[in-house]
Amino acid sequence: MNAKYISINTQLFQEDEAKLHVSDLSIQRGFGIFDFLKTINGKPIFIQSHFDRFYHSAKELNLRVNYDRESLLKAVNELMKKNDMPNSGIKFILTGGFSADGYSIGEPNLVITQSPFEYDPSGFEKGTTLVTYNHQRQLAVVKTIDYLQAILLQPHIKQQGADDVLYHHNGAIRECPRANFFMVKDKKIITAKTDILKGITRSKVLNMKIDGYSVVEEDFTLNDLAQADEAFITSSTKNVLPVLVIDGQKVGDGKPGKITRQLNELFSELIRLG
Amino acid sequence: MNAKYISINTQLFQEDEAKLHVSDLSIQRGFGIFDFLKTINGKPIFIQSHFDRFYHSAKELNLRVNYDRESLLKAVNELMKKNDMPNSGIKFILTGGFSADGYSIGEPNLVITQSPFEYDPSGFEKGTTLVTYNHQRQLAVVKTIDYLQAILLQPHIKQQGADDVLYHHNGAIRECPRANFFMVKDKKIITAKTDILKGITRSKVLNMKIDGYSVVEEDFTLNDLAQADEAFITSSTKNVLPVLVIDGQKVGDGKPGKITRQLNELFSELIRLG
Repeated sequence: MNAKYISINTQLFQEDEAKLHVSDLSIQRGFGIFDFLKTINGKPIFIQSHFDRFYHSAKELNLRVNYDRESLLKAVNELMKKNDMPNSGIKFILTGGFSADGYSIGEPNLVITQSPFEYDPSGFEKGTTLVTYNHQRQLAVVKTIDYLQAILLQPHIKQQGADDVLYHHNGAIRECPRANFFMVKDKKIITAKTDILKGITRSKVLNMKIDGYSVVEEDFTLNDLAQADEAFITSSTKNVLPVLVIDGQKVGDGKPGKITRQLNELFSELIRLG
Repeated sequence: MNAKYISINTQLFQEDEAKLHVSDLSIQRGFGIFDFLKTINGKPIFIQSHFDRFYHSAKELNLRVNYDRESLLKAVNELMKKNDMPNSGIKFILTGGFSADGYSIGEPNLVITQSPFEYDPSGFEKGTTLVTYNHQRQLAVVKTIDYLQAILLQPHIKQQGADDVLYHHNGAIRECPRANFFMVKDKKIITAKTDILKGITRSKVLNMKIDGYSVVEEDFTLNDLAQADEAFITSSTKNVLPVLVIDGQKVGDGKPGKITRQLNELFSELIRLG
């Protein structure tokens, strides 16, 4: 993870000492939730929104969080101080805890890791390339640690020369494994509404105003997407990133779109204002 | 886990020292497979069949097993010797390994645990009670560690006064989270064919001969099930266990069925012959 320290249940451990017993329900049954945010110059971005979602995910999986926001924030600040890593990604994992029978939820374990990360604005011009895949994530609205399908698809994505996968469910566009998806078409900026994880960056974009365009949550299909003017994905690490190619076909003229660019600038401004 | 020792990558660790680093892909992304078998009087039951499935599951998830059958068997024997636990359940977990980026597969970690377990024949008469639930497991044919939905359903199952859940997919019967499901109807002993985990006990039952009955893999629905004479589940811990009630309705006369009893006796005999 390339940090000096990792926090487990708000206690700091040297990186290589940060371990969980094999009876943890994440190891036994893949049971846990997480959240992820970035820090810029030592400042965590939109941390309260991430806390909101973290507590919501925990509640959905019947996991008790033994720490209030103040304690979580304190744990993050202690970790940041010890790691001395101003530009980073911070990940909170809450597992099902140590389980005597390997099946029942125990006392959840909270793991907080920090890794070097810095947003590279030049990535915007390069954009990204997707392949579509028919898959509906289970419990999609909860940020669980379940990435079985996504990791399994890595060789396929590589083979197709793409950067990532865009899930659709029998033709209805959903999301990427770690990012939300938008298209721009008919003066609308549209993102899926149903059975997806509602990202923090996505929610910021949904609140943006662009002259002559409406920004809407609305389900749409692969067929609709074929005629899009622009497409982009949103995430805490990618901000607003143009999608230039989907399944080998150019989106619009295959270059970063005007609306996508405006949205990314608005988003960068939001981060600056914090 | 109630054993003195746990094996990690074929090395023995004292129970409370058996830990994995938090960068393991099971903790980060719920990524791993497992298998489970029982031992009776120190003898592992159907271990080669479990090894077959274990290697198959690993291959399906692109996980390399760095141990051949002989090494696995040696690791099991060493663990059994040190734990001195003749009647037990033995679980093999193979995780995605330590992952620098928390997303890519690393060098898989092999965890072997042993827990006290002894089949109780008196459980047969008590049978079991199920509630149905519409859910298709992802990658159902692979024995992954993904039990997100099953664990999430525990409060619902309890509330309904049932012991476990029977998954159907839009009406098509599938399986229980940790057992296969059969019904007996019209002189047929039937178990689902599509999108299920094919259990070892299930495969043994499929090879059994009962006079006047055929044993078949064939998809069937909730409606078909409503008219069943008998129903039962199969697993390494439950052997052949009568299902007496489904969704509050008796199956047949609500008592362990004659065919179910014959199959369980044949299965016990198979285990004795080993």
